[in-house]
Amino acid sequence: MPSADLRVALLGYGTVGSAVNRLLTRSADDIERATGRRVQVVRALVRDLDKERDYPPEPGVLTADIRDIVEDDDIAIVAEVMGGVEPAGEYVLELLHRGKHIVSANKQLVARRGGELFAAALEAKAQLRFEASVCAAIPVIKVLREALVVTNVHRVLGIVNGTTNFVLTEMESGKSYDEALAEAQERGFAEADPTDDVSGADAAAKMAILAGAAFNSRVELEHVDYSGIDAIDPADLAAAHELDMTIRLVGAARLVNGQVDVRVEPALVDRHHPLAAVEGAFNAVMLQGDAIREITLEVTGAGATETASAVIADMASVIGTMGTGFVQNDGFWRELPRLPAGESRSPFFFRVAVEDRPGVLARVAEELAKREISVARLLQRQNGTGAVLHVVTHEAKSGALAEALNAVSSLDEVRMRPTPLPVISDRGVEELGWA
Amino acid sequence: MPSADLRVALLGYGTVGSAVNRLLTRSADDIERATGRRVQVVRALVRDLDKERDYPPEPGVLTADIRDIVEDDDIAIVAEVMGGVEPAGEYVLELLHRGKHIVSANKQLVARRGGELFAAALEAKAQLRFEASVCAAIPVIKVLREALVVTNVHRVLGIVNGTTNFVLTEMESGKSYDEALAEAQERGFAEADPTDDVSGADAAAKMAILAGAAFNSRVELEHVDYSGIDAIDPADLAAAHELDMTIRLVGAARLVNGQVDVRVEPALVDRHHPLAAVEGAFNAVMLQGDAIREITLEVTGAGATETASAVIADMASVIGTMGTGFVQNDGFWRELPRLPAGESRSPFFFRVAVEDRPGVLARVAEELAKREISVARLLQRQNGTGAVLHVVTHEAKSGALAEALNAVSSLDEVRMRPTPLPVISDRGVEELGWA
Repeated sequence: MPSADLRVALLGYGTVGSAVNRLLTRSADDIERATGRRVQVVRALVRDLDKERDYPPEPGVLTADIRDIVEDDDIAIVAEVMGGVEPAGEYVLELLHRGKHIVSANKQLVARRGGELFAAALEAKAQLRFEASVCAAIPVIKVLREALVVTNVHRVLGIVNGTTNFVLTEMESGKSYDEALAEAQERGFAEADPTDDVSGADAAAKMAILAGAAFNSRVELEHVDYSGIDAIDPADLAAAHELDMTIRLVGAARLVNGQVDVRVEPALVDRHHPLAAVEGAFNAVMLQGDAIREITLEVTGAGATETASAVIADMASVIGTMGTGFVQNDGFWRELPRLPAGESRSPFFFRVAVEDRPGVLARVAEELAKREISVARLLQRQNGTGAVLHVVTHEAKSGALAEALNAVSSLDEVRMRPTPLPVISDRGVEELGWA
Repeated sequence: MPSADLRVALLGYGTVGSAVNRLLTRSADDIERATGRRVQVVRALVRDLDKERDYPPEPGVLTADIRDIVEDDDIAIVAEVMGGVEPAGEYVLELLHRGKHIVSANKQLVARRGGELFAAALEAKAQLRFEASVCAAIPVIKVLREALVVTNVHRVLGIVNGTTNFVLTEMESGKSYDEALAEAQERGFAEADPTDDVSGADAAAKMAILAGAAFNSRVELEHVDYSGIDAIDPADLAAAHELDMTIRLVGAARLVNGQVDVRVEPALVDRHHPLAAVEGAFNAVMLQGDAIREITLEVTGAGATETASAVIADMASVIGTMGTGFVQNDGFWRELPRLPAGESRSPFFFRVAVEDRPGVLARVAEELAKREISVARLLQRQNGTGAVLHVVTHEAKSGALAEALNAVSSLDEVRMRPTPLPVISDRGVEELGWA
């Protein structure tokens, strides 16, 4: 059959926008075979019409006026690849109100204004797809929404920031944090200002989106606790190595008795755990559920082409399900409460430097025991004039552990406030050994 | 809105069939939210109506007569979970002719009669989905067909048989082949008759299906070259270990200059390669393409629940795209020729036992050089009264190598016919070291 053209518009025509147009043009036949429609970019919103572009669109496509897209009733799908929360948010909202389907590659927009945007989509019976907004090269949103539709995913673990994973991998091989970061910047893995990456903020936005898709309940960005890799002590790296573990910046989203817990923090990961094998600027997401025990998806970090590929796959899925509403707008059908602070459970590792006097170990152990935290492994070592304790606990509540460590810090014999790190291991923590 | 019921039937009500019914019942709300339809199993074809069942269906659902399903125009989707090529194939063909959508979990059926069945589906504008037929717990067909719709996947590497991977992992830790196989049988990973697994035949059927979905061209099962793990020599395992590699039964599908090459064989895999980390009864599939450099999907082996989950996800996708025909029946739109035998390129490893006489090494090297096969690494060792050569070649054509090894075998000084194993490494083979 001769297929009708399907007219799409782009918001933004930077690196990703031009990659979308190039890939759409190159793959027009593939898309037509898959969807029965020939997709054509008819409009692209830019700020500067006269700027030189890598892959310039057809004459007349570029516009600086959003009205050209909003008011064109023949445009069915709009890909938002401009970035930033505003004005992207206002544009998307208005386009949704007009019933246009949206495909967004914008992590900050989906994480920060998702609630409002998904409500608008639902009302207008328009689709809002966002695969490209989180780990673009991993089709994890499609897998969660469609392949695992009856699986009840209860845990998502992710290494979702390539920059920090690269830095941590380099630090493991002996580089300092500053050296490793400089190397990441040199290789183009880190921005000149790496704050968003190293602080965990970038990973937090991704985990908010992933948790929402996994648990069918919106997760607000401010409800994601995060810390970064900038404060990792080389002594923690050494301790991890001795335990046959490695340190990774892990995003963890859990559904615990109907409550949602989402966090991003450095964690000790057992060498035998699939996430420990994720090295350099790779990303990986592990999904655990009822009907499917565990799926891990791993990729090399995403560039503009991977992002464009995800945007186009979402467009194809919109075309393939237009009118059926399949697995799109029902995404956040429930509102799950947040797990109260301090209730998050995990085994933990911590180091504590103490005066080498009789009774110190007993006092530390007592503060833990009082709060029903049991020790799985303990190592005491001489360290100059004092001693250092390395402790791995059994599963404990983070709040109880924080209290215990506060008490430990105030002991006279304790020289340094300990910072706990969660431990991720499929084996029992008692099986971890010190080398 | 009140949703209309959607009536489905099952062919077969064994372990998988009853798991599908149980999961469908338990997840009816999830499916309704995703698709807008409430799915109900109204018929299940069995041979013996009186057999006791784990999760018995509603009264009146079981039938021994396929006509009850074929002739019921209210049944929209049929899940084929009976296994075997016949009569499943005839049933599915007739159901497709009637315009019913089919979801199949049957690897042998899809691999052996796929050509005919997909043609029938296309003609009837019915969908034939088959996610559950290959590595059920990995949604690789959906990822290939939908997420990577514009990616031009050119290589699929897979560890797609959990039994053999378990056996190989156990052999690495020192067990003999027989001990490892017995352990796999004891743990329920291997059948009483493990021939299909250990011969590579099971993996070959899966790779035929995966290659077809990746390259959009049907791959006939008889065009998949395969060998198994039953002939692996402990000396090869030891040699792999020395090279910091491991032996895996690897399925490899490649698109080479528009020609398709699909094979299953034991291969040496570099420890730094993602497939080397796949241990025990795990499965993994790695996809390499243009727009996405590399995705690896890894899971624990699939049981009845995982298979049922994949069957139901396919049902939901059928419902979500009924009438749009999205990415279903255009799957095999081209007919790619098979790469001629002997043209498959890879680096290879082989061992050859020789008399320890001057000039032997030169003669072996000459036979390789004559056929333009260059040696990346070579190790000669004393071995009793003779010597053993371990050789890693640069990329070479399998046919040229076979010729060279034939010639080598006929040398007077050569005691044993060498069997080459392909080498899989992302690093250059010259970087592999002997310990």
